[in-house]
Amino acid sequence: MTKNALVEQIRQKKSYLCIGLDTDIDKVPRHLLSYRDPVFEFNKQIIEATKPYCVSYKINTAFYESRGLSGWESLEKTVRYIPGDYLKIADAKRGDIGNTSSQYARAFFETLNFDAITVAPYMGEDSIRPFLEYENKWTIVLGLTSNPGAANFELLPTGSERVFERVLKTVSTWGSPENIMFVIGATQTEEFVNVRRILPDYFFLVPGVGTQGGSLEEISETAMNEDCGLLVNVSRAVIYAGNGEDFAEKAAHKALQYQATMCGYIK
Amino acid sequence: MTKNALVEQIRQKKSYLCIGLDTDIDKVPRHLLSYRDPVFEFNKQIIEATKPYCVSYKINTAFYESRGLSGWESLEKTVRYIPGDYLKIADAKRGDIGNTSSQYARAFFETLNFDAITVAPYMGEDSIRPFLEYENKWTIVLGLTSNPGAANFELLPTGSERVFERVLKTVSTWGSPENIMFVIGATQTEEFVNVRRILPDYFFLVPGVGTQGGSLEEISETAMNEDCGLLVNVSRAVIYAGNGEDFAEKAAHKALQYQATMCGYIK
Repeated sequence: MTKNALVEQIRQKKSYLCIGLDTDIDKVPRHLLSYRDPVFEFNKQIIEATKPYCVSYKINTAFYESRGLSGWESLEKTVRYIPGDYLKIADAKRGDIGNTSSQYARAFFETLNFDAITVAPYMGEDSIRPFLEYENKWTIVLGLTSNPGAANFELLPTGSERVFERVLKTVSTWGSPENIMFVIGATQTEEFVNVRRILPDYFFLVPGVGTQGGSLEEISETAMNEDCGLLVNVSRAVIYAGNGEDFAEKAAHKALQYQATMCGYIK
Repeated sequence: MTKNALVEQIRQKKSYLCIGLDTDIDKVPRHLLSYRDPVFEFNKQIIEATKPYCVSYKINTAFYESRGLSGWESLEKTVRYIPGDYLKIADAKRGDIGNTSSQYARAFFETLNFDAITVAPYMGEDSIRPFLEYENKWTIVLGLTSNPGAANFELLPTGSERVFERVLKTVSTWGSPENIMFVIGATQTEEFVNVRRILPDYFFLVPGVGTQGGSLEEISETAMNEDCGLLVNVSRAVIYAGNGEDFAEKAAHKALQYQATMCGYIK
């Protein structure tokens, strides 16, 4: 998916919501457990119910890998089920030496046909380059994450800046706003002005709204740019909004609430 | 596997060799392609031929994920095939917020029954803790990697030390030499004395010998400790030593050469 196509979707739907399919089989409503693949059935119903309100789905690979082969099967079925005009993100946090990152790129961009993958920057340039070689695919690099552990290394000072700022500045020179995004956690609101100043033109994937406590309003006020420049992800607060037979309806209602707020910020 | 059990294996076999099963289906000898699962067949023959000379096998998940569901199946069959007295490492470079890292820990330590997993430290403490909760399992954290990209962020100065040194010092306080190892690339030989000084008691997983050009002799001379403290990984140089019908024999011969060198360093 190109940047123009993504921006077009955001404007049409007046939404920059990404829904995270962190589907935990232990949290799927009981009535789905009789299906052959309860996780896929859950995802299918969530996608059908929420798709008017979002522009992207993010699949957290950990929740599928934890179930082994059958989990990987649910993942494959889910990514194929998502309609083509949604940005399909593999939240995989991969990254390794060049010849290995090439294999990850092939896994997620070719075999599974995701549009985007999240990547950890620790190992540097040759661990990220192989993902950037794909046209119309996105590499979403960890910048400043939403979790408490961000304080351990991401926020360390290095010279006149901090490690995550160096990551943003360095990695952004390896590609462009057409093929790189950065993860900036919603819980880091005091940093959003600073981060947008460093990278005026890049899209940010913003997790941490909902269960983790980040504020959609604050992020939208401080970090939106001309093209919107934001994809705000909500996972648990949407997909587990209910856990009865009406779970999908409840998820849709929650997604609509987020979209309604977003609508007020879209230029 | 406990540290005592690992050290015992190293002393018995006079080897601290780990063989990396980075099995690329495009590099598997042609005569194996008629098998239902050529990658598993290749791994099985490599394991049978090399097991007298090593104490550990490392499965690089990228090479399996790139083949989708059938790749994940080869991975599961391979890890189950490795005998119980070998340290089974998932070279997966995972790491995410706490609730997601818990799912990765479950995937690799429970569902797949690996003994160890490699983890990226960028996201800090809550991304690593969930792995440490498992008894007799190992968390192998990226310290200073073997690739050129290590210079981008790992080697950045922060105060009087560098980022990777801060990672070694901080992460080591979250566990002990009984459940944490660090990845130190073999191509970073000038750093080995320094790293061993920072962490006298920890095991290092050392990739980069073989195709990447690191020196087994230099590492052994500078970084061995009382318990050996080293697992030296070789992947491509062993598993692709030949690519005819005698590929396993050639791999065994190469593994034996490494073991013969190691034998001279074991106390």
